[in-house]
Amino acid sequence: MTTPIKEHLAAPGPVAVPPAVLEAIARPVVHHRTDTFAQTLNEARAVLAELLGVQDEGVAILTGNGTAAFEAAFLASVPSGATVLSVHAGKFGARWAKLARVHGHEVIDVTAPWGRVVPPEAIADALAANPGVQAVTLVHSETSTGVLHDLEAQAAAVHAAAPDAILLVDAVTSLAVSELRPEAWHLDAVVAGSQKGVMLPPGLGFAWLSERVRAKPVSPRRTLAFDVHAELTAQAKGATATTPAVGLVAGLVAARPYLLEGGVEALWRRRATLNEALLAAGTAAGCTPFAERPSPAVAALRVPDSIAAPDVVHALAARGVRIAGGQDDAKPFLIRPSLLGHADAYDALGLVGMLELALRDAGLDVPAGVAVAAAMTVLES
Amino acid sequence: MTTPIKEHLAAPGPVAVPPAVLEAIARPVVHHRTDTFAQTLNEARAVLAELLGVQDEGVAILTGNGTAAFEAAFLASVPSGATVLSVHAGKFGARWAKLARVHGHEVIDVTAPWGRVVPPEAIADALAANPGVQAVTLVHSETSTGVLHDLEAQAAAVHAAAPDAILLVDAVTSLAVSELRPEAWHLDAVVAGSQKGVMLPPGLGFAWLSERVRAKPVSPRRTLAFDVHAELTAQAKGATATTPAVGLVAGLVAARPYLLEGGVEALWRRRATLNEALLAAGTAAGCTPFAERPSPAVAALRVPDSIAAPDVVHALAARGVRIAGGQDDAKPFLIRPSLLGHADAYDALGLVGMLELALRDAGLDVPAGVAVAAAMTVLES
Repeated sequence: MTTPIKEHLAAPGPVAVPPAVLEAIARPVVHHRTDTFAQTLNEARAVLAELLGVQDEGVAILTGNGTAAFEAAFLASVPSGATVLSVHAGKFGARWAKLARVHGHEVIDVTAPWGRVVPPEAIADALAANPGVQAVTLVHSETSTGVLHDLEAQAAAVHAAAPDAILLVDAVTSLAVSELRPEAWHLDAVVAGSQKGVMLPPGLGFAWLSERVRAKPVSPRRTLAFDVHAELTAQAKGATATTPAVGLVAGLVAARPYLLEGGVEALWRRRATLNEALLAAGTAAGCTPFAERPSPAVAALRVPDSIAAPDVVHALAARGVRIAGGQDDAKPFLIRPSLLGHADAYDALGLVGMLELALRDAGLDVPAGVAVAAAMTVLES
Repeated sequence: MTTPIKEHLAAPGPVAVPPAVLEAIARPVVHHRTDTFAQTLNEARAVLAELLGVQDEGVAILTGNGTAAFEAAFLASVPSGATVLSVHAGKFGARWAKLARVHGHEVIDVTAPWGRVVPPEAIADALAANPGVQAVTLVHSETSTGVLHDLEAQAAAVHAAAPDAILLVDAVTSLAVSELRPEAWHLDAVVAGSQKGVMLPPGLGFAWLSERVRAKPVSPRRTLAFDVHAELTAQAKGATATTPAVGLVAGLVAARPYLLEGGVEALWRRRATLNEALLAAGTAAGCTPFAERPSPAVAALRVPDSIAAPDVVHALAARGVRIAGGQDDAKPFLIRPSLLGHADAYDALGLVGMLELALRDAGLDVPAGVAVAAAMTVLES
């Protein structure tokens, strides 16, 4: 095997970015206090609003990553001292519990084992037992386990048990990937980052705030640099409260046709099909889907006990393909290929073909073509 | 006059970026958990360390803007409840006083009128009168007024009066612009952003922490997404604590030859000469330098009372040249052209020539060539 001459990103972020988007990002810098940038910002916010099915007015583009956007949204909507219910069954969900604790909040954890969903009933029970809860954190697509939580049902459980509780949602790998309806589902804050479903490089965070949160900003303010309310006020006028990453904002506008041509529901279907193809291929090759309810963002696959997942990850890397492995306790057995970025059936077939080779490199006996054939069946169905 | 066919950034940030740097930023995204990115990150931190004259170990690259980096450095080095002395004589300095108040700190303000420096003696007096001060915020180059504070003397005053006080410095427009020696001057935190002296697009923040701050991280932690200590720990291993803006980090490496070819002192001299040329040209054209002690980052010029500064700004914009005007109360009379980015004598002469034309557009009688001649004298001296 020779040194690879190309590099293929097949991880659940960062993702492959369309060349036209990279080109837009590379254009000479535009001053952010100009009509030119104001128009770009308005168009970028409109892309996010269309992806979320909301009005532009609640959408803020932040300079930072998804973690920063979550912290900003949290500090914009949860008052100091509030009791927080944190729902998590994976690495990212646990991060939001930690975040709340860092800011001095009492946190009640509602958890499930990695790979499982957290049932809405468990959330309802926890809220019934803790009537003082003022905010709830949820993760829509848990990237560490490949699980898509039933956010609609979880949010309904919160709404029924604690209608006044602020509901914050990590949509980092569900925005532009899976059905997500912030208003219909009564969410209060939805957070994402640029290097996932919207197909940009990392560096932007996104936060949508509900009307009730916007109407009642946390007082006193809890941050200066990450004040989403200040950003919303500025962005309504085509400006930003602090200096924005202008290149990436222009990139989001350039990404629009790759995301919204044909509408957001067509995008969700494309994502679902590609990920189902990966799961089917992995299963045909001898792996087992890890997620109880798979997210279209990532194909979490448990490799057979006879081989080591890191060997598969490294074999793919040696062949020029970058997938994610398992995190923490899941490292020995989990692989997480993903077609979250600028990808189509061609990429799916190339990736699963390379996965066959890498599984063989790692010592698994995979008959040539079985995974590709399984992927084809999904892609052509 | 026809519609401009080019756009020239001549504001004190964002700045003109070398095309080779834009090209590096536009390369396909590299996963941040790879050896390839680890090497890029190490090289980027080495660029900052060389600019600051420090070891790499204290340098963190953050995903966010300069305001975010300041908030992160503040939360990493100033414990909750500490009394803060905030030294300011302009819009950006005042922002750090506000930041401390947002986080619940008692703040003592030491100020001077816009355009003036804050004398070290005023700081010494304030510290003598307030022995409980635990942290001091300073601004090296105050972009709103064009003033370069005598940071060495100010820091010495703090060090003499309150050796235990944490000293945080806004170096947003002094890094890679003006002499800055964090260790020799006993600073504790130095903060900057990417869209200024290092000639990148906006989107990265930089924070350097002193050994004593690194040795004693604020406990308990005050933020999760912007934890500089966590970043330093991760970055020492070629990783980041949260997802980095990989493109901009690669851009910083690509910017190295534009910054450090010939050494940082040569860079400081180039910056000083270009800005002196702007100030001399503006003076020759009838304007008055506004800053008591000019920063090489920006030529703050007071226009004659007979004309309106915004008219000059707009006339330049109509001719394709983007300078900054005055902020807040200084808006009617201040203009702030700058060659902080990728600029040389050619740009200086082009800019001051266009400034002559714009001053004439705004109603000032400027004999053709006087400003250009004055700039030439400086550039050729």
